[in-house]
Amino acid sequence: MSVRIAGIFVLQIVFMAKLSAQVKTPVYTKASSLTITGKIFPHTTEFNRVDSAEYPALPRSVKRLLTHSAGMAISFVTNSSTISAKWCVTDAAPYTNMTSIANKGLDLYIKNDGKWQFAGAGRPEARCSEAVIVKNMDSSEKECLLYLPLYDKVSDVEIGIDDGSTIKAGAEPFRKRILIYGSSIVQGSSASRPGMAYPARLSRATGLNFINMGLSGSAKMEKAAADLVASVDADAFVLDCIPNPSPEEIKQRTAYLVNAIRAKHPSAPIILVQSVIREHGYFDQKVGERVRQQNENARKEFELLQQKGVKNIYFIPADQLLGDDHEGTTDGTHPNDIGFDRMLQVLKPAILDILTKHGIL
Amino acid sequence: MSVRIAGIFVLQIVFMAKLSAQVKTPVYTKASSLTITGKIFPHTTEFNRVDSAEYPALPRSVKRLLTHSAGMAISFVTNSSTISAKWCVTDAAPYTNMTSIANKGLDLYIKNDGKWQFAGAGRPEARCSEAVIVKNMDSSEKECLLYLPLYDKVSDVEIGIDDGSTIKAGAEPFRKRILIYGSSIVQGSSASRPGMAYPARLSRATGLNFINMGLSGSAKMEKAAADLVASVDADAFVLDCIPNPSPEEIKQRTAYLVNAIRAKHPSAPIILVQSVIREHGYFDQKVGERVRQQNENARKEFELLQQKGVKNIYFIPADQLLGDDHEGTTDGTHPNDIGFDRMLQVLKPAILDILTKHGIL
Repeated sequence: MSVRIAGIFVLQIVFMAKLSAQVKTPVYTKASSLTITGKIFPHTTEFNRVDSAEYPALPRSVKRLLTHSAGMAISFVTNSSTISAKWCVTDAAPYTNMTSIANKGLDLYIKNDGKWQFAGAGRPEARCSEAVIVKNMDSSEKECLLYLPLYDKVSDVEIGIDDGSTIKAGAEPFRKRILIYGSSIVQGSSASRPGMAYPARLSRATGLNFINMGLSGSAKMEKAAADLVASVDADAFVLDCIPNPSPEEIKQRTAYLVNAIRAKHPSAPIILVQSVIREHGYFDQKVGERVRQQNENARKEFELLQQKGVKNIYFIPADQLLGDDHEGTTDGTHPNDIGFDRMLQVLKPAILDILTKHGIL
Repeated sequence: MSVRIAGIFVLQIVFMAKLSAQVKTPVYTKASSLTITGKIFPHTTEFNRVDSAEYPALPRSVKRLLTHSAGMAISFVTNSSTISAKWCVTDAAPYTNMTSIANKGLDLYIKNDGKWQFAGAGRPEARCSEAVIVKNMDSSEKECLLYLPLYDKVSDVEIGIDDGSTIKAGAEPFRKRILIYGSSIVQGSSASRPGMAYPARLSRATGLNFINMGLSGSAKMEKAAADLVASVDADAFVLDCIPNPSPEEIKQRTAYLVNAIRAKHPSAPIILVQSVIREHGYFDQKVGERVRQQNENARKEFELLQQKGVKNIYFIPADQLLGDDHEGTTDGTHPNDIGFDRMLQVLKPAILDILTKHGIL
């Protein structure tokens, strides 16, 4: 009898050892104890881009969208061979033109030969998810950047590493601050994952901190939103908000937004970008005409501001922002990763020229 | 009293007239009465790629995947200013690395100046959906191509047009038949919408009919699957199935697949494509090594077949299939639209060279 019990005991040990070899339980660290990059204001509640209680006059939709973690990433250093994550989002319905990874998930970049290189994605499976992002790595110390969901409010973010390995806060990976105020296209709909939103791609490509103030369909340059934008501490401002307001609103609101920024930032470059030409507008005549009027009014307002002597303002026209094969969107409006690639080919050199001229690069 | 009733009546008429101006009820036509392109066999039940009852030895997962409508599109001609659709899919859980539009939705192309141009997407909202794909068009007659979901079984597809406009079956838009047997990458995970799967892009770019036999993770070259591939009426065969079988299975199964095709198609070119290098395999050493072995074994099997005198077989190596910036996937494995764009830059000229040599182009 004692032999039989011993036999079962040995089997149990063997079984447990096998299990632990296959499934190492991660040791979790709260993201709040690491470095968070991409925040619009340094003091805001964990993953809010703006604490809207401080800006009571903002439209309700803007307040809600500012709870989305678009553009934020966790910077940390670890020698763990596996990197896992736990995170929670809301029950908000997923967007049909986005992957869940982009909408409610994560993606990880690791510094390799001085460049940020994609290493794995965190697939959301429920309101709260736990996922292995990458495994079977060597045990060298690595600089990591874990992007948070583009289109949801995230909470309880924790990074998991192997027991016995180390994790610490990383350095702020990007320098200076360039705020991009804009539409769903800035926020990252329909990038394939969070790190593919165009402000994030610009940051990795330049080393500069392009900060995502994308507001889905609600970047309408209301007075309260303009005052918010102007209150942000930034070295330059990109206004990619022409897709959302009506042509009439563009006429009424552009000057206030630009002047509000100029009043708080006497010499910061302000770069107005025309709306991407909506692909379905080549067939839908009403959509085509609306975008044409939006872009025409944006140009007129820009020229009026120049005539009035506002300095250091710049204009990027929409031509070729999505290339010319009409394949650059997921749904006619929102760039897919090809569309964003083409936007970058136009925006990156144009913006870098301006920043260089101003000694910001 | 009669005046008051008349007043209400007039208001009602005005209200109804306004409503009908805004929301025209579409007149629906069953897709089965129009032209379906992209079918592997002409006789199969509506949107099945293969009727698996005819191939009882196929693995269960392959049978299920062959019910997905990947690669199929409805060809029709209409002068309607609005094009709507109704369609049903299953309750299968959505994929986290795909948009719902790609997974369970539709996208429409319209011929413009001799080229197929994207015109709008059909967003799935439930098991059965009804959506306006494009509206406010001029009333000229247009050739249309409506792609069906990549990763679900679709049924009850109907096309909606304005009352009083016309719709008829379109011509088969593509000529010849090139079968692509392969993995999830062929099936279209993670293209942003159905028409962005790479076989569909190849068809539009060349005018040739690239037929999608993508089988998610189940393109493992089993004997029954090889016999199925060989039984397809095609002018050329592209085998992009190396990502799924183990290195050992590649050694055991490649020759059977190629010889089975050759036995039925004495001179058709057979093009073996190495596996895309999985992006997370640059960090996950096990994944990196597995792909290296898969690709090495694919090359060895190809060379053995050449040595044995099998003619008209071709090999496309994986180098540069996804470019070199590591941004070409959604999740480390599945190309996003940038990744597919880069695959096309390699595959299209390589395949066209071979087809030209064989007089197929």
